[in-house]
Amino acid sequence: MGKFNKVTFIGFGLINSSLAHVFKSKSLAKETCAYSRRKETRNKIKKLKIVDNVYDDIKKSVKNSDLIILGVPVGAMKKIVTIIASSLESGAIITDVGSVKKELVDSIPLVLPNHIHFIPGHPIAGTENSGPESGFSELFKGRWCILTPGQNTSKTALAKVKNMWIEAGMQIAIMDAEYHDRVLAITSHIPHLVAFSIVGTVTELEDQLKTEVIKYSAGGFRDFTRIAASDPVMWRDVFLNNSEAVLEMLGRFIEDLTALQKSIRWQDGESLEKLFTKTREIRKGIISEEQD
Amino acid sequence: MGKFNKVTFIGFGLINSSLAHVFKSKSLAKETCAYSRRKETRNKIKKLKIVDNVYDDIKKSVKNSDLIILGVPVGAMKKIVTIIASSLESGAIITDVGSVKKELVDSIPLVLPNHIHFIPGHPIAGTENSGPESGFSELFKGRWCILTPGQNTSKTALAKVKNMWIEAGMQIAIMDAEYHDRVLAITSHIPHLVAFSIVGTVTELEDQLKTEVIKYSAGGFRDFTRIAASDPVMWRDVFLNNSEAVLEMLGRFIEDLTALQKSIRWQDGESLEKLFTKTREIRKGIISEEQD
Repeated sequence: MGKFNKVTFIGFGLINSSLAHVFKSKSLAKETCAYSRRKETRNKIKKLKIVDNVYDDIKKSVKNSDLIILGVPVGAMKKIVTIIASSLESGAIITDVGSVKKELVDSIPLVLPNHIHFIPGHPIAGTENSGPESGFSELFKGRWCILTPGQNTSKTALAKVKNMWIEAGMQIAIMDAEYHDRVLAITSHIPHLVAFSIVGTVTELEDQLKTEVIKYSAGGFRDFTRIAASDPVMWRDVFLNNSEAVLEMLGRFIEDLTALQKSIRWQDGESLEKLFTKTREIRKGIISEEQD
Repeated sequence: MGKFNKVTFIGFGLINSSLAHVFKSKSLAKETCAYSRRKETRNKIKKLKIVDNVYDDIKKSVKNSDLIILGVPVGAMKKIVTIIASSLESGAIITDVGSVKKELVDSIPLVLPNHIHFIPGHPIAGTENSGPESGFSELFKGRWCILTPGQNTSKTALAKVKNMWIEAGMQIAIMDAEYHDRVLAITSHIPHLVAFSIVGTVTELEDQLKTEVIKYSAGGFRDFTRIAASDPVMWRDVFLNNSEAVLEMLGRFIEDLTALQKSIRWQDGESLEKLFTKTREIRKGIISEEQD
């Protein structure tokens, strides 16, 4: 692929810092830059030496950039694009790594000049860690990246963003933004919400019981605590910006859970066993998908 | 520790087959036996060659045994003990590996002669796999085993069961049966129920969406499918036999989840962020516990 001239990472959490590692190890751009609002984060980025320059002025950071990657919480993206819009080079590409797409597809183009390309993206990869020091170049390997371009998107710009994620080791899927949000509500947003909720329930237990729960967490709860340790602000914005799809799926889930509650109360073993047998099948589907 | 004379494994799923590996590699008994109701399972056990003898007659299997380990679903245990009671040697020890304890503590002694020792146990270890071939001796390493003996339990019998689990690599905790069930309802039963439920919700989606959900499951849902692939009959019995503690915790959880639903509907970002920040703390507690 052709090298980028100058890439600017706006925000430097798990995804952008991991991507910066990829840019460095594969020399994907002549110059790599990062901007972060917080001085503490900027100092961390400087120490890590994964990018050439670290800026404290967001407008300067995007000057002459042909690729800008937004790695900030979804709720902050429109504001940031509004601020940088007039500093962008004609033909520059803005892409993002947010977990919600419809809200961005609806709002970002409204604040962006016509000569800038916006390619919404979502690399489905992550750990429960956040911050510049949590990044590593292998994060994306073998994972899916979903891009949700509009109908008038430049094919050249789309191809460039695609190639970037392929260089990071990802498989690419192109999808409608609204459909992306529905799929992700189920695969990611609801599981996170449930994990946050159940771990939240535990924080309210009396102290001794809470201590025991932490001690014996290996039985299932441990997996939930890992999920519920994800970045609070990022997840706040996911739920605020994908509320429609999340609320729809959450409604279905609460209905099903209430039915299960009733089965337990009425000692209806047959219904329980039937459900638990059905759910086992889904796992087989996932394992065979991974072996493809 | 003193060797057992003859150990009989009743049921040969993940836990008992793993424990049989430990008995074999550490020579913890002069003779090791297994009973399974199903011919298919018995044939599998024979092929694996982890025990000396495989029985199709449960009464014969326990003859002359000084240790009987029940590794069947909790709902089947009382019936099995009733059947074998008259075939047991005086002074024999019965222990179990079930995830629910109060129900057993209340029911098993009623069908057991006085000269037999019952030591209820729960090794907190597992994978989503089941069946004789899923066992491996390292399953228990570094995990907790909770024993819930009654007040009149023989100290010698208790020490023998304790030592067995220590040989398997476990740490031992002694606990009241009812308290065990409350702790496990939170650490294990509710997380499993929630995972079964959410994966169940997905099984009811229209086909195309379901396919996409499986494809992009890496975002959180994947962890749930692993949990929801656990043994259906075992888990049916857990919920039927620990219904009180499970329903109490489930009630609290549904309340909290409904509050979260409301926060999303009202776009109350502050409440969401506050909760997600609080849940992150619990993880730190678990990680520091593991490093102890």
